[in-house]
Amino acid sequence: MNQEIRDYSKRLLDSDGFQGCSEKKYTKRLNKLRAELMKVQRKLQDSASPIVIIIAGFDGAGKGQAIQLLNEWLDARDLSTHSFWDLSDEAIQRPHFWRYWDALPRRGKISIWFGGWYSEPLIEGVHKQSNQNKLGERLESIRRQEEALAADGAVILKFWFHLSKEEQEQRLRHLYENPKEHWRAMSDDWKHHSLYERFESVAASMMEQTHDSRCPWFFVPSADLYERNLTFASLLSQSLEKVVGEEGSDPRLKNPRTVAYAPSPYRALAEVDLEQRLARDVYETQLVEAQSRLHRLFWTAYERRISTALVFEGWDAAGKGGAIRRATAAIDPRLFRIVQIGPPTLEEHSYHYLWRFWRDLPRDGRITIFDRSWYGRVLVERIEGYASDGEWQRAYAEINEFENEITGHGTVLLKFWLHISKEKQLNRFRSREEIAYKQHKITDEDWRNRERWDDYETAVNDMVAFTGGGDSPWTLIAGNNKRFARIQTIETICNCLERVIKKKG
Amino acid sequence: MNQEIRDYSKRLLDSDGFQGCSEKKYTKRLNKLRAELMKVQRKLQDSASPIVIIIAGFDGAGKGQAIQLLNEWLDARDLSTHSFWDLSDEAIQRPHFWRYWDALPRRGKISIWFGGWYSEPLIEGVHKQSNQNKLGERLESIRRQEEALAADGAVILKFWFHLSKEEQEQRLRHLYENPKEHWRAMSDDWKHHSLYERFESVAASMMEQTHDSRCPWFFVPSADLYERNLTFASLLSQSLEKVVGEEGSDPRLKNPRTVAYAPSPYRALAEVDLEQRLARDVYETQLVEAQSRLHRLFWTAYERRISTALVFEGWDAAGKGGAIRRATAAIDPRLFRIVQIGPPTLEEHSYHYLWRFWRDLPRDGRITIFDRSWYGRVLVERIEGYASDGEWQRAYAEINEFENEITGHGTVLLKFWLHISKEKQLNRFRSREEIAYKQHKITDEDWRNRERWDDYETAVNDMVAFTGGGDSPWTLIAGNNKRFARIQTIETICNCLERVIKKKG
Repeated sequence: MNQEIRDYSKRLLDSDGFQGCSEKKYTKRLNKLRAELMKVQRKLQDSASPIVIIIAGFDGAGKGQAIQLLNEWLDARDLSTHSFWDLSDEAIQRPHFWRYWDALPRRGKISIWFGGWYSEPLIEGVHKQSNQNKLGERLESIRRQEEALAADGAVILKFWFHLSKEEQEQRLRHLYENPKEHWRAMSDDWKHHSLYERFESVAASMMEQTHDSRCPWFFVPSADLYERNLTFASLLSQSLEKVVGEEGSDPRLKNPRTVAYAPSPYRALAEVDLEQRLARDVYETQLVEAQSRLHRLFWTAYERRISTALVFEGWDAAGKGGAIRRATAAIDPRLFRIVQIGPPTLEEHSYHYLWRFWRDLPRDGRITIFDRSWYGRVLVERIEGYASDGEWQRAYAEINEFENEITGHGTVLLKFWLHISKEKQLNRFRSREEIAYKQHKITDEDWRNRERWDDYETAVNDMVAFTGGGDSPWTLIAGNNKRFARIQTIETICNCLERVIKKKG
Repeated sequence: MNQEIRDYSKRLLDSDGFQGCSEKKYTKRLNKLRAELMKVQRKLQDSASPIVIIIAGFDGAGKGQAIQLLNEWLDARDLSTHSFWDLSDEAIQRPHFWRYWDALPRRGKISIWFGGWYSEPLIEGVHKQSNQNKLGERLESIRRQEEALAADGAVILKFWFHLSKEEQEQRLRHLYENPKEHWRAMSDDWKHHSLYERFESVAASMMEQTHDSRCPWFFVPSADLYERNLTFASLLSQSLEKVVGEEGSDPRLKNPRTVAYAPSPYRALAEVDLEQRLARDVYETQLVEAQSRLHRLFWTAYERRISTALVFEGWDAAGKGGAIRRATAAIDPRLFRIVQIGPPTLEEHSYHYLWRFWRDLPRDGRITIFDRSWYGRVLVERIEGYASDGEWQRAYAEINEFENEITGHGTVLLKFWLHISKEKQLNRFRSREEIAYKQHKITDEDWRNRERWDDYETAVNDMVAFTGGGDSPWTLIAGNNKRFARIQTIETICNCLERVIKKKG
């Protein structure tokens, strides 16, 4: 099985391994390794790298014990363990990867995943619930998740606890024949044993497809307890040393994933007809009708368990707030949640930039309204230099991947850019300054942003061009006339919901 | 209805109210109030007070609109809205108040609760699902929750949107006859209207029982939109001004809830026989048997949806970690979670001290193991002065209340104090210093704590005496012999689980 991965582990071990170790030698070496682990974990605390340890392998190889050992060897305060089993509906009713993003550690902390995102593809592959193609696709989407996390500094260490078929049989026999150990055995063990070869072959191609220097697979021979524990502790300690050794320079800067970037030739904003407007009386009639329709449609969506994510971006003073309020006025407050996105908090900053948006995705039947969103990465963070060139340039692909996961789950995703002319913005800034309760809405930052209008225009055109494909197109709203913008927004939502509901039958 | 509460609101309004206001006057006053609200909210950010706004009242009075207005008037970034409806199993499978603690704001932030913890008692009272006594008890437990939060600085503002029976009828008729507004009407509205008198009487006694200066009820006449909105905005703005005005001095210190405290005469620790021990061979046989029993029992508990919270406290070096590991070695890792409690993080500090423990309570069928716990309040925080006298002295009652909620839900709660002699501790400290991977386990703090042994002894005896009643007694474990301690711990858990499982049939 996977000679390359076996060799990778061997090279790191820097010895012939720990075969045939005596108890005395075992205790001595393990104690040394534990001291090293404690030391490297302490150094890790200041690191920009979150660490995920995935424990996988054959039944009977001691995965549960490995997790116990980790909790014993490491300071459990910087550790959390996750098993993704018997999930709550908070997880089930959201896009698949939500459960894993929810279990990510902060920078400098460690999460241990029991099987992690490899459990399902492995089991489904073995039981042929997914064919070769589908399995390949699932693994590819896992690979892309790991790649995105790694680019942000994460290290994902994946351990395969291995037994040969004979060793597995011996181990299971021992468990069943030894009354003291009997309770450790699981009912599925023998069934899985009879599928050993299939397990091995699916696991081999799984590892091959997802092995990478920042997200490596390690091979842990598990027939002999001493050898298993020493190999595991040693590989872990070496890998963490490597992470700590790289520090000083931020791993996010050291590992730039370069992507080809050239400004998009497609100038979406120029095509918006800003002259469109609605008279007040027409507006008032249409508003009540559109709101009434929206109200009904979102209840139907709730009944059909369809969730919706609405993204609102736009120029300062383009009327985002007003458009959102006209829509939400018609939605039962129990169904929706508005998430106002500002600069990341200290906590949010200690995770991947998409983490806070994953968290806020709606459960089935619910609605999340993002007042600004993950697009900050390619707008303000790009313009102001909060994100490096590499970061915002690869963000288009990361965002497309993220949105594919959202729409792949069946969530309706609509994205609005509220567009106004530069002159209209000036008028609105001035009139805001005159109204007491609106003064907080206009700040020096708004004026500064305005000076960079052209840069933003390029960024918006790029954004629309690079992230407008697939199942989540952009809607550019002509916002010079607020009445027109509000009706267009609500009707766009209604039309899309109607289509989705009809399609679902 | 509640003249006292009507008068309370009136006094705060400092005017005759806003009856019969013209549109022009309305706009002018509202704009002024909005500017005031924005200002006071900004000042609130530095406050130690979390603010909860509860919106309750008659159907048709505009509770949903009130929530919309709040989101318009206030900076939504420091605001979150919660409706406690169609709850996820994360909430349903935990003690009742978990959902509300989960929705508490941080200090300086605002949470808006749609009905909050008053919805259920109100509806059940009206439909006579709970008799007078049971309703009284429920309200009393709400009152105690509010009292505990208020003592920690929270302010809970409760608004009752009121309509007379005639006004409600008019409002509903308007909604049903006006096609534009029809969608705002709810199917239960008329049914509730026919129960108006009952609603009013249950609401009146509810308000009476839970009105308090830090958790006041406000009366908002809601037949006239202008009057309603101005009254609401004005009462809110005045109340927040009061909170901000109190600041400078920490409200937690300013509002000490004094309780009678005298050290307990009951010296629980002295009664532990520290001579108890187990020979190694007896231990090894018993351990395997006890672990096997524990393994089975926790699976049975899982199947019966019984949750368990295990609390481990004890002297430094008493063997907490070892006892926990011997227990967890026998529990399926998918069933339990260990929570290591250290000093509160910055985030945890911005909530009530019980908040983090509420969050970590297990779902039905699961196990949370607290390695140290909320008892830090009456141990280290008492001894080191991190909690004021008032704080730790009233903590006994708060903890009893908290634990009543846990056991009232059906969660098994077991609390262990691992006891050792002062000499035994010294021996263990010394031998820890000699083992490389255990050196991190012995710090200067441990030696300092040791110097305060007598103070801790008093605190432990008080803790056992004041929090050992009810359904969550303390088990004091004789820990001088680790083998004895480990077996006693596992067997105590087993015996208790067996009893509970038998009782549940």
